[in-house]
Amino acid sequence: MREEIANRVEYLTRLFQEERFSFSAGMIEDLKVPDIAEVIAGLDREYRLEFFSALDLDIKSETIPMLDQGVLRELLENLEPEEIASYVNRMASDDAADMINLLEPGRVHLVLERVSRKDYRDLIALLRFDEESAGGIMAREFLVVEKDVTISEAMKKVRDRKRQIEHLHNIYIVDSEGILLGSIPVISLITEDPETPVSEVMNADIERVTADVDQEKVAFIFRKYDLYSLAVVDGRGKLVGRITVDDVMDIIEEEANEDISHLVGTGEEEFWQKSPVKLSRSRMPWLVTGLAGGIAVAIIMNSFREALESIISLAFFVPVIMAMGGNVGIQSSAIVVRELATEDFGFVETGRKILRELKVSLINGSILGLLLFIVVFLWFRDISLGILVASCLMFIVVWATMIGTAIPLLFHRINVDPALATGPFITTFNDIMGVLVYLAMATVMLRFVISH
Amino acid sequence: MREEIANRVEYLTRLFQEERFSFSAGMIEDLKVPDIAEVIAGLDREYRLEFFSALDLDIKSETIPMLDQGVLRELLENLEPEEIASYVNRMASDDAADMINLLEPGRVHLVLERVSRKDYRDLIALLRFDEESAGGIMAREFLVVEKDVTISEAMKKVRDRKRQIEHLHNIYIVDSEGILLGSIPVISLITEDPETPVSEVMNADIERVTADVDQEKVAFIFRKYDLYSLAVVDGRGKLVGRITVDDVMDIIEEEANEDISHLVGTGEEEFWQKSPVKLSRSRMPWLVTGLAGGIAVAIIMNSFREALESIISLAFFVPVIMAMGGNVGIQSSAIVVRELATEDFGFVETGRKILRELKVSLINGSILGLLLFIVVFLWFRDISLGILVASCLMFIVVWATMIGTAIPLLFHRINVDPALATGPFITTFNDIMGVLVYLAMATVMLRFVISH
Repeated sequence: MREEIANRVEYLTRLFQEERFSFSAGMIEDLKVPDIAEVIAGLDREYRLEFFSALDLDIKSETIPMLDQGVLRELLENLEPEEIASYVNRMASDDAADMINLLEPGRVHLVLERVSRKDYRDLIALLRFDEESAGGIMAREFLVVEKDVTISEAMKKVRDRKRQIEHLHNIYIVDSEGILLGSIPVISLITEDPETPVSEVMNADIERVTADVDQEKVAFIFRKYDLYSLAVVDGRGKLVGRITVDDVMDIIEEEANEDISHLVGTGEEEFWQKSPVKLSRSRMPWLVTGLAGGIAVAIIMNSFREALESIISLAFFVPVIMAMGGNVGIQSSAIVVRELATEDFGFVETGRKILRELKVSLINGSILGLLLFIVVFLWFRDISLGILVASCLMFIVVWATMIGTAIPLLFHRINVDPALATGPFITTFNDIMGVLVYLAMATVMLRFVISH
Repeated sequence: MREEIANRVEYLTRLFQEERFSFSAGMIEDLKVPDIAEVIAGLDREYRLEFFSALDLDIKSETIPMLDQGVLRELLENLEPEEIASYVNRMASDDAADMINLLEPGRVHLVLERVSRKDYRDLIALLRFDEESAGGIMAREFLVVEKDVTISEAMKKVRDRKRQIEHLHNIYIVDSEGILLGSIPVISLITEDPETPVSEVMNADIERVTADVDQEKVAFIFRKYDLYSLAVVDGRGKLVGRITVDDVMDIIEEEANEDISHLVGTGEEEFWQKSPVKLSRSRMPWLVTGLAGGIAVAIIMNSFREALESIISLAFFVPVIMAMGGNVGIQSSAIVVRELATEDFGFVETGRKILRELKVSLINGSILGLLLFIVVFLWFRDISLGILVASCLMFIVVWATMIGTAIPLLFHRINVDPALATGPFITTFNDIMGVLVYLAMATVMLRFVISH
């Protein structure tokens, strides 16, 4: 939050606290809608509703799509269905659908039965799609003309409908059945001869997706082809919606944050959350997993107590073996998860990536093992101990890399979000595996080789 | 890479290998430019130049902006200055500047002295900005009219210049000095009365940035205001360039990848890299840091050898104390780094975030400490040992959280990329601190309390 907004929030909070609050639109008329959304998010929860309620209806419906989900959900809980329905009328269909998705399930129909027939149809069409699919992010507002229409007729249609469509950059062209044939940029209306039929100047080779395509894939297509909008079609090729780049920017950010959340083990909603108790709750599962893993390591060490008691130096290297397994595991899985998020690859490529990581881990394992061998040898003047820790380190580097690479790729193949397979569980798993292998190898070597 | 592209790459590779390669444009005429870029990236390095050279000049100059930096840098090394200059003529100025930035410094002037005078002026204007600033990502191509021009005159200008400007969505309006006054969307040319001066219908309240603004901030403005393009002005308010949303999508992705790279300690160029040796090299610094940290931990444990030998169970909890410090540290810094990337906050907010993390860490530390106390007590029936490990865990959770939060925030205040302060160094630092505190406390308690 910028200083300027922070100051405004503080000022408003003081007014609210002193209970001499008389809010007037004038007090925020210098703010743009996104700033108003920031002010709402910045206010303490108890004052948000009061502030929001005092806004003009138009400002309200423009502000809603800008609010964080958590903030909006809370606001909506305190608003009447009539009021929510009145915002729907003023909002783009995709934003309205997102808002409806935040309502408690029991209240959805209360709102839907109060909106206009057209909005109702659009919303029903949008709400059946997964929120993270093309259908879930598309809007129903787009400009479409049939293929025989001329440029000047299309121009007239633009003039008639201008106010209803935000960000109008393309006009879609369909046949009499509504099947998508192509599109022309708005600018063509100016540069082309008014009497030409649109089908003669349209670009027929445009990207399109079906409504079930995942939003991450949608973002990928936008980036690859530098798109500003993307047509969504049904199974028959009929145009059903349009996705615009402003929503895609948010998706790219969201998906990256989601990947990071999974990597470090924080909850997905973390980024707008302010309450320490809720934050603690969202991070706790991973921390408890880590704690359980740590306790498991202690139990394993205890079961090798004899070996450790006879050579205490063995214990000194448990932390480094464990930490290195965690490090290389998280590196590999971070790389793979981001690659999966930003490209789209098949079976051959999957094999190649595993092979690549195997090679990297063999190089890294050898170098790190050699370094550790040198240190241990110089320190303890004990070749056996040096070989033991170095070979364990090398093993765990290769092992953890393979686990960190293969599990996300496997999850991807079976259509589970690969980011779920990173962080917490992989790290804990590798920790336990590392200690187990190290101490087992140590015991074996103790019996045969190490002499103290 | 999609299966389809992978197959194509394999087919081409086979042709190259059999040395009966006779490439013709027809063999890739079904591919779009972004696909051709993927094919190039997919080919082995030795075949890339041969393939690229066989493309048409227009395809070449369209493909270049789509290539990964590493791939492009390699290609450019093998091309003559004349040839590179011929691409510049066909490219948008921002893409051309990005390409020039990849040349070896000694070759830049060889290319620049071969481009047209206009391109030269544009490039010189762009190249002086940092690559990650607004000036470094803006293009010099934009459509601008003076304020007294009418809608129909502006329309004529659009018709004249259409071919030269990609993604033309806005027309900028300036005064006679070139100072930016506002803009109108292209669609206004159609919907407004042709005789109106543009200044009467323009939106004067548009976002703008100066050329030195960081690209992360630019991305933030695009997302916040749902922009499609953003004007760049100089210190006096003169329009000098325009940034479009397609470049911003890449920046959002890049910045997220950069943050992740820093978090997990991989190099920034990792994401396009294929050579295992280079990959190993980019991950090695963090791994060596981790190894050094691990060895430091071993040395610390060795210096507490006496305590550890008298109570071996103490050693069992070194890994868990260390791992938990790492976990909470990386969680907090990931959160803070992403917050810094996606909002823009001042001094008050900084204090609030530290306070928030302090509260979270006190809650988490207490819960985790209590859990560990219960386990240790039930296991060893030793209250002192339980109190020792639990209080150390609690200390390290609070400590690591504070370090993980405060260091990135501090770096941000002094204008160093906060992501640099995450991952490797913080984790290693916390590891060492954790073990040191744990064993020091253990020694003290051993002397006074624990009786075995």
